[in-house]
Amino acid sequence: MNAAAITVVARWQPAPDALGEVLELCAQMRRQSLEEPGCLGYEAYQSLDEPRSVLLVERYRDEAALEAHKQSAHYRALVVERVLPLLAERKVDILRAHAPL
Amino acid sequence: MNAAAITVVARWQPAPDALGEVLELCAQMRRQSLEEPGCLGYEAYQSLDEPRSVLLVERYRDEAALEAHKQSAHYRALVVERVLPLLAERKVDILRAHAPL
Repeated sequence: MNAAAITVVARWQPAPDALGEVLELCAQMRRQSLEEPGCLGYEAYQSLDEPRSVLLVERYRDEAALEAHKQSAHYRALVVERVLPLLAERKVDILRAHAPL
Repeated sequence: MNAAAITVVARWQPAPDALGEVLELCAQMRRQSLEEPGCLGYEAYQSLDEPRSVLLVERYRDEAALEAHKQSAHYRALVVERVLPLLAERKVDILRAHAPL
């Protein structure tokens, strides 16, 4: 992973009856995000301890690529307008490679 | 999350018939790691796209805390001696908070 690459770890906790819809929107977001030139990875996971907790691990070539992602039409249409209102909780960490120990 | 904190994102791909055992070992590792003074979080997730892919998101107060984790008896007994031989693939990213955009 190049040093400039940014990893986003997003924890989404959908409202009780919204998990199915959020998972469907995640799949759509994954397909469209992976077509962005600066997106290096977009993976969706489900927590083993709290099944209603979804984790996204996304990778962007650099800050500009992450910004382009957040300005994209699919981010607006799928995340801002449809996923966020379905979430009870949301926590996003923006991380960068730490020099190997 | 304090700036010195280190996030470890570990992707484990167990061998075909080893998923159950690896998940059980993950649960044990989670319980024991969370008792380490410098461990701030230890979460296990399963991939939605490849069910046999397990993701661990771990948090340590600083480099010394991560090192203490890797030198711990439970890391040796559970991860080194039991999990690693069961893995077909393993990828570990060591990450640090990136300054907010």
